[in-house]
Amino acid sequence: MTGCDTSLPPGLLVLLSGPSGSGKGNVSRLLLDRMPRLVLSVSATTRAPRENEAEGVDYYFKTEKEFLDIAKKGGFLEYKRVFGMNYYGTPRAFVDQQRAQGRDVLLEIDVTGALEVKRKVPDAVSVFVMPPSFAELERRLRGRGTEDDETVAVRMRTAYDELKSARLYDYFVVNDDLEKAAGEVRAILEASRLEVRRRLDVIGAIMEGERQR
Amino acid sequence: MTGCDTSLPPGLLVLLSGPSGSGKGNVSRLLLDRMPRLVLSVSATTRAPRENEAEGVDYYFKTEKEFLDIAKKGGFLEYKRVFGMNYYGTPRAFVDQQRAQGRDVLLEIDVTGALEVKRKVPDAVSVFVMPPSFAELERRLRGRGTEDDETVAVRMRTAYDELKSARLYDYFVVNDDLEKAAGEVRAILEASRLEVRRRLDVIGAIMEGERQR
Repeated sequence: MTGCDTSLPPGLLVLLSGPSGSGKGNVSRLLLDRMPRLVLSVSATTRAPRENEAEGVDYYFKTEKEFLDIAKKGGFLEYKRVFGMNYYGTPRAFVDQQRAQGRDVLLEIDVTGALEVKRKVPDAVSVFVMPPSFAELERRLRGRGTEDDETVAVRMRTAYDELKSARLYDYFVVNDDLEKAAGEVRAILEASRLEVRRRLDVIGAIMEGERQR
Repeated sequence: MTGCDTSLPPGLLVLLSGPSGSGKGNVSRLLLDRMPRLVLSVSATTRAPRENEAEGVDYYFKTEKEFLDIAKKGGFLEYKRVFGMNYYGTPRAFVDQQRAQGRDVLLEIDVTGALEVKRKVPDAVSVFVMPPSFAELERRLRGRGTEDDETVAVRMRTAYDELKSARLYDYFVVNDDLEKAAGEVRAILEASRLEVRRRLDVIGAIMEGERQR
């Protein structure tokens, strides 16, 4: 090997954002089903486990003291308190371990969180998913049949604000067709693995092989 | 539309480099066969046309005066004189026209040329193709049966020098299997089209659509 210390972990960190109704959850599920090397990031939370939730699978369940201790030591790539109640965070250790083992870690995350993670992990690959139009976004939100007019209106305004930050991402995917959108995110992952900055060890090994012939 | 002037042409410029014996020509042919939107850049040259060569298909054939006039006006993305004899260059106009029409332009080019084009076209996507080892490179060069020991030795040294520049490229593809390597370059092209910097007009159009609802 080359002794080149500049290379990045073998696995990717993928940040997937998009407004509620963008279909990013469906894109995630499709990719997780099809890509054996891809795993979903497991968050930590201070909320109580629900009946069918398992520690380390659905969440890492923490007391508030435990959570804040981890936060103080820089153990979260990002965290936040929701409605002044429960904390949610992305444990850095889980992401680092998976990536070191060659697994790609997928993180479904809002814009604020994604930008925070990107500052801490500059080689994270960030993807913004959006329906082809706001009319279509509204149609999907109303189609759920679970949200009243006011909730839909709030979600639409939030989506507009989030879209303003889309240009801070690496990639922009229009989800007008789930299979197409998932295929595009997959191509982004495949290409990202081939970025030169992630392959300095491969280049170094080929050169070292020649010097030792 | 959005009036956003910062977006890039719809088509890509793809720079494909790699040592003689890397198989980049085979990768190119496979992709050109399969991707209808991908076209090969047509070079200009001062050498005489061969029997079966057609103007504007194989080359743009120029007199030396014509060629140097174009060069003086900045009409080439790169050009060089080979063995102090004939000039070869990449006409900027061809590349620009194809990209404006939404076609991706593939340019098979040496390292020096690629770096020169990249300076002039910063959004060009550069890919370095390499066999898995120098032993394999030598095997392929000898397998051609057309090159004597000295020529092979020169090509091997040149390859080593070129590989030193691989880290200046965007992507690094190991060609140990033609289908796999072509698939990887294809993923790079698909992902590159989704880069945010190329989709500012799409983002702008979605936002404008919402403002006008």
